[in-house]
Amino acid sequence: MATATLSKEMLDAHPWPAQIDRDLLARCIDECLACLQSCTACADASIAEEDVSEMRRCIRLCLDCADVCDGTARMLTRQTEYVAASARAQVSSCRELCGLCAEECERHAQHHEHCRICAGECRRCEEVCAAVLDAIG
Amino acid sequence: MATATLSKEMLDAHPWPAQIDRDLLARCIDECLACLQSCTACADASIAEEDVSEMRRCIRLCLDCADVCDGTARMLTRQTEYVAASARAQVSSCRELCGLCAEECERHAQHHEHCRICAGECRRCEEVCAAVLDAIG
Amino acid sequence: MATATLSKEMLDAHPWPAQIDRDLLARCIDECLACLQSCTACADASIAEEDVSEMRRCIRLCLDCADVCDGTARMLTRQTEYVAASARAQVSSCRELCGLCAEECERHAQHHEHCRICAGECRRCEEVCAAVLDAIG
Amino acid sequence: MATATLSKEMLDAHPWPAQIDRDLLARCIDECLACLQSCTACADASIAEEDVSEMRRCIRLCLDCADVCDGTARMLTRQTEYVAASARAQVSSCRELCGLCAEECERHAQHHEHCRICAGECRRCEEVCAAVLDAIG
Repeated sequence: MATATLSKEMLDAHPWPAQIDRDLLARCIDECLACLQSCTACADASIAEEDVSEMRRCIRLCLDCADVCDGTARMLTRQTEYVAASARAQVSSCRELCGLCAEECERHAQHHEHCRICAGECRRCEEVCAAVLDAIG
Repeated sequence: MATATLSKEMLDAHPWPAQIDRDLLARCIDECLACLQSCTACADASIAEEDVSEMRRCIRLCLDCADVCDGTARMLTRQTEYVAASARAQVSSCRELCGLCAEECERHAQHHEHCRICAGECRRCEEVCAAVLDAIG
Repeated sequence: MATATLSKEMLDAHPWPAQIDRDLLARCIDECLACLQSCTACADASIAEEDVSEMRRCIRLCLDCADVCDGTARMLTRQTEYVAASARAQVSSCRELCGLCAEECERHAQHHEHCRICAGECRRCEEVCAAVLDAIG
Repeated sequence: MATATLSKEMLDAHPWPAQIDRDLLARCIDECLACLQSCTACADASIAEEDVSEMRRCIRLCLDCADVCDGTARMLTRQTEYVAASARAQVSSCRELCGLCAEECERHAQHHEHCRICAGECRRCEEVCAAVLDAIG
């Protein structure tokens, strides 16, 4: 089953009314989980590359981005007693990390396929974080 | 983009040969991420329910299961210097937690839709963990 | 062994020069780990309380704060290829969450000892995050 | 404040009776948190080393060990609706990972101080996990 559908189903099954559009929220949660995975994989693949010593900034930003996406996915999943200020703070951090990580991965996209794919996922996550920030206001 | 496809693409982009079938691995990673989300959501929804005091065991097992699935997804994503013993230990723990959490969520499936959906996801994750354990040997 | 000493020892053993004062960094890492623990414990204890339905906002903010502190401790521990913008974004989020969580826990400090202790830890973490933000500039 | 004391204070402030000796539990939580930090730091320092290509197995096991210790610290912190089978499964995984990671770090302890310190922390965490497993029965 695609995670996307499941996240939306789970958000819809919550007993309280939603504070943010649930389609948008589900998309953001799904991109955060996908980005946690792609960044963890990209850091790991970069560690295995022969040119690992050129990949240190990529590895570091991927590990950071994975950790921030993880926390953001967990926070956005929670709908009980929503607090706009906390969502805003963490989604802002997530957008920043995804942007920085995308930029670095793009630099290696020509010679490392995992960087090319990961950069694309980071950009998708960055964009939906921006949309969630607009929705939070 | 469905997480399933992305996980598989990222596994395939790794520079080293695979130790476990990558289709199976990608399925397990995707179910662990889906289960991290559904358990976080089910705990949160249960906290919001009027009968929250009846839901304590469900909340606790969902929070535990989310944490174990999170670590398992991260570990299985890594293919550099694979160590069978460590994968076996964590996937065993994940299968156990998913089974326990599924059993508890099933008890509430009739009156809480989020428990019904979450139980299904826990069972899927439990099954693919069992398949991965078979593959590890 | 106290975590504080160990974090400092580990930071000092890194082969590269430090970008931020390592005593300050170690203090922030230690408070983030302590706050991850106290918030996880406070959420869990609140779920067990008879007045659980009054504790929903406390539970939710504690779970969020734990997740953000977790990611922040991991990020600040990394010294390879330091990026100021990413540290600033995540430590800002952490300071915000700790402040919000402290405020809520303080409201219950009179009748729940775990909230009193947790509020104190959140305030310590909030303060050292502010000091790290000053150091990042 | 030392994490050790805080974990114990938080466990003692829980409204329900304990299932496992709280001094032992607090020690295990504190070592898991310390091990999460030392393994994250050791992986990061190894990535910065000139002989990074010789450190791949160490990096990988440290990243895995950090993730498992993180989940274990969170699970053991929860005392509401304790389930012995789930604690047993995850603490077993944690003991295994700490042992494997310690063994690898010990191989590099002579030339990398961060590996020497991290190996020591992994051994302490492995030992207290073993003691908790004895207590669970």
